[in-house]
Amino acid sequence: MVDLDYCVVGAGFAGLTAALRLKQAGHSVTLLEARDRIGGRTFTVNRDDGTWIDRGGAWIGPGQDRIDALMEEFGIPSYKQYVDGDAMMFIDGKTYRYHGTIPMSMSPFAVANLGVVFLELTRMCKSIPPEAPWTAPKAHKWDQVTWAKWLDGNTLSTPARQLLESAVSGLYTSAASELSLLFCLYQMAAAGGPSFVLGVKDAAEDARPVGGMGAIHRAVAAELGDVVQLSQPVRSIAQDAEGVTVRSEDRVVRARRAIVTVPIAIASHILYEPMLPVDRSFLHQRMPSGAVFKIAMVFDEPFWRADGLSGQSFAPGSAANLTIDSCTDTGSPGILTAITEGLEARELCKLSDADRRKAVLAAVAERFGDKALSPLDYIEHNWTVERYSGGGMIAHTPPGVLTEYGPALRRPCGRIHWAGTESSALMYGFIDGAVRSGERAAAEVVEHEAMATS
Amino acid sequence: MVDLDYCVVGAGFAGLTAALRLKQAGHSVTLLEARDRIGGRTFTVNRDDGTWIDRGGAWIGPGQDRIDALMEEFGIPSYKQYVDGDAMMFIDGKTYRYHGTIPMSMSPFAVANLGVVFLELTRMCKSIPPEAPWTAPKAHKWDQVTWAKWLDGNTLSTPARQLLESAVSGLYTSAASELSLLFCLYQMAAAGGPSFVLGVKDAAEDARPVGGMGAIHRAVAAELGDVVQLSQPVRSIAQDAEGVTVRSEDRVVRARRAIVTVPIAIASHILYEPMLPVDRSFLHQRMPSGAVFKIAMVFDEPFWRADGLSGQSFAPGSAANLTIDSCTDTGSPGILTAITEGLEARELCKLSDADRRKAVLAAVAERFGDKALSPLDYIEHNWTVERYSGGGMIAHTPPGVLTEYGPALRRPCGRIHWAGTESSALMYGFIDGAVRSGERAAAEVVEHEAMATS
Repeated sequence: MVDLDYCVVGAGFAGLTAALRLKQAGHSVTLLEARDRIGGRTFTVNRDDGTWIDRGGAWIGPGQDRIDALMEEFGIPSYKQYVDGDAMMFIDGKTYRYHGTIPMSMSPFAVANLGVVFLELTRMCKSIPPEAPWTAPKAHKWDQVTWAKWLDGNTLSTPARQLLESAVSGLYTSAASELSLLFCLYQMAAAGGPSFVLGVKDAAEDARPVGGMGAIHRAVAAELGDVVQLSQPVRSIAQDAEGVTVRSEDRVVRARRAIVTVPIAIASHILYEPMLPVDRSFLHQRMPSGAVFKIAMVFDEPFWRADGLSGQSFAPGSAANLTIDSCTDTGSPGILTAITEGLEARELCKLSDADRRKAVLAAVAERFGDKALSPLDYIEHNWTVERYSGGGMIAHTPPGVLTEYGPALRRPCGRIHWAGTESSALMYGFIDGAVRSGERAAAEVVEHEAMATS
Repeated sequence: MVDLDYCVVGAGFAGLTAALRLKQAGHSVTLLEARDRIGGRTFTVNRDDGTWIDRGGAWIGPGQDRIDALMEEFGIPSYKQYVDGDAMMFIDGKTYRYHGTIPMSMSPFAVANLGVVFLELTRMCKSIPPEAPWTAPKAHKWDQVTWAKWLDGNTLSTPARQLLESAVSGLYTSAASELSLLFCLYQMAAAGGPSFVLGVKDAAEDARPVGGMGAIHRAVAAELGDVVQLSQPVRSIAQDAEGVTVRSEDRVVRARRAIVTVPIAIASHILYEPMLPVDRSFLHQRMPSGAVFKIAMVFDEPFWRADGLSGQSFAPGSAANLTIDSCTDTGSPGILTAITEGLEARELCKLSDADRRKAVLAAVAERFGDKALSPLDYIEHNWTVERYSGGGMIAHTPPGVLTEYGPALRRPCGRIHWAGTESSALMYGFIDGAVRSGERAAAEVVEHEAMATS
């Protein structure tokens, strides 16, 4: 009756890694992917000139050991994110050009306020055990407060407030009023603190794989071979005493256990028979994703570098919230990426393609000059409307959810196990977290199966 | 190509009313219901002795004109909720037996605090326009605060805090930390204020239909005849220039427009082609329901009445959070209902049927004496695990959601229109709100269709 050892659902980094580790250990496995491509919330396209564009997740940073190990295993080198030159910030009606993390030309009051808030966030993060943030001494207190409300009480300077509100809610691609303070602290703590999550150099955007994320997932998929089945959105998972029956668009897979790696709001679209335990099915109603555009603009050369600019800019409220240099390791052609998140991204959704392009390029040109108006190539990806991601970039928990339902994030439900970056204790929300979760789930199914049959 | 004028999804009060009004106006209509019964979050069972048990929504109150009109149309009388005798409250380690709304034997400090908070809530509610709560002068401020956090700042007495935390979060069957203050205020404002929502006599639990809610929905269904199709969970809705194609388990319905009336977390399980607009699809990720048990205990007589008790009790943290007299209009046999919500309900889910029954009866007997230990009949309904309700009783919005996505609650998405109590401006969360929403949606599809074809 059972044809396979394991069935993995979703071929993002979590699912690919889980299937890889299971296959390597000699188990039979099938990986069902809804889309006609692998990669999940990462998606690399290769251009004729040999360059690549990461339309989704792109970066790695120090401490992300598991994605590092995967890259080493497949012989994929990394290169540093370009950070030379000045960054720019447009906040509270003022323009800042600066080097380093914070524009020191802000008012001393704003700089001091930011410093104090960063110290306070770092201190708060230290009290949060990433394996169980709901057990932090102040977990209940912090989980009943929104990030927006906490900022109200802790940022006395308007630019400091705007900066922290936009930086953090931008990361979760949702309004600051939607985010639990405990969730924000936990996500930062899971990566070592706020300076990692909000930073670039030596932090969350420190480096990129040569060839982009696709270089890694293509290598993994090549090793998996026909384990990976594309265009198979999973509609239902039934479990019984012997195994699971996973039904996709036109396949039926019988296996001992399933690992579901898709984002949590998407996992809720699968019909489970019998129903999942209450805590897990309620979690499925309570972890939304947000809105985000990632737009790559290709130019002959990275002209901003010659102007002494790093390519980094930050402009809350604009059609291009963030920009960052996204050249390949050769530095040519010039690739600049705009990322627009949350409310601004939802507004961009309402524009026609042509009007949106015009708005984004105009915003970028205001910062980098008219050369920005005429890219050779303009590659837009709207994660907001990706049916099988449910939005971008990471799912968050609103207030109350982490303390009420957090333990359900990883707890297996009978023969159904859970992976995906949101199920990772460490590096929650990063590609490294996805890899970790896939490895953890692969070990978990084998261990549970051994227990069940011993 | 189009066989029908309209297709309604979900046969709760919203869907039944929408289909009824459309049929009465001479339109062709089909109503697809996932379950093998009608009623949605209302569910009436009839006993051999002629009595009835409302396993779900049960009450009506003054100002609920649309359910009143429906009852009048079908000749269904109502009778008053029994409120004679004393109520009991078990809070902060103390027992209170009292008459009226608040135990006046609480400390004068607690009573005064409750009075002040009620006045303040009433005042705040008055500033909220039910048609568009997101436009209230303080909407953004209130939507970034949880109900729990607001209580922190406004309830200085422990019993007042416990009472308000449990009463409101019980109503929404979720933790106080999950609820937006703006949402709580809006839901109260939509029913005329906190005294309606939290009250019994002359308020939300003022009366019941003779025969229970089933008397109404059976009469509506009889008039609808074969319009109602049971056991047809809708899997997908595709729309094109001419109409909609609604696919259920084994039917395909072509109609000009669809009205989806199911709870919002359940509406998210339907596959929409093309995808819904971003604001609506994100709303689907952001309106969870909660956990609730409703348990009817049938005795020879309502023995509590003879003891001078109303049958009402309130005991946060107990296996029976609330009890209330649920006799029919004849007052015999004695029917007492226990309602347990939120965290306590989730804990009850973990017990075996026998252990749960024991725990609930023990809690009830502590209040009403040992007679309560031996009911003739014990009818438990766990809405928490109702696949097609997604939990009970009402969906709430976490912080940030009403201001960001509120306008999507009722806005049609092309040929798909929305009903259900959560889409009603007035009486949100009540059966009357469901009826209103069904009538509004029925008028809306006809009007939009007239516009589209004129």
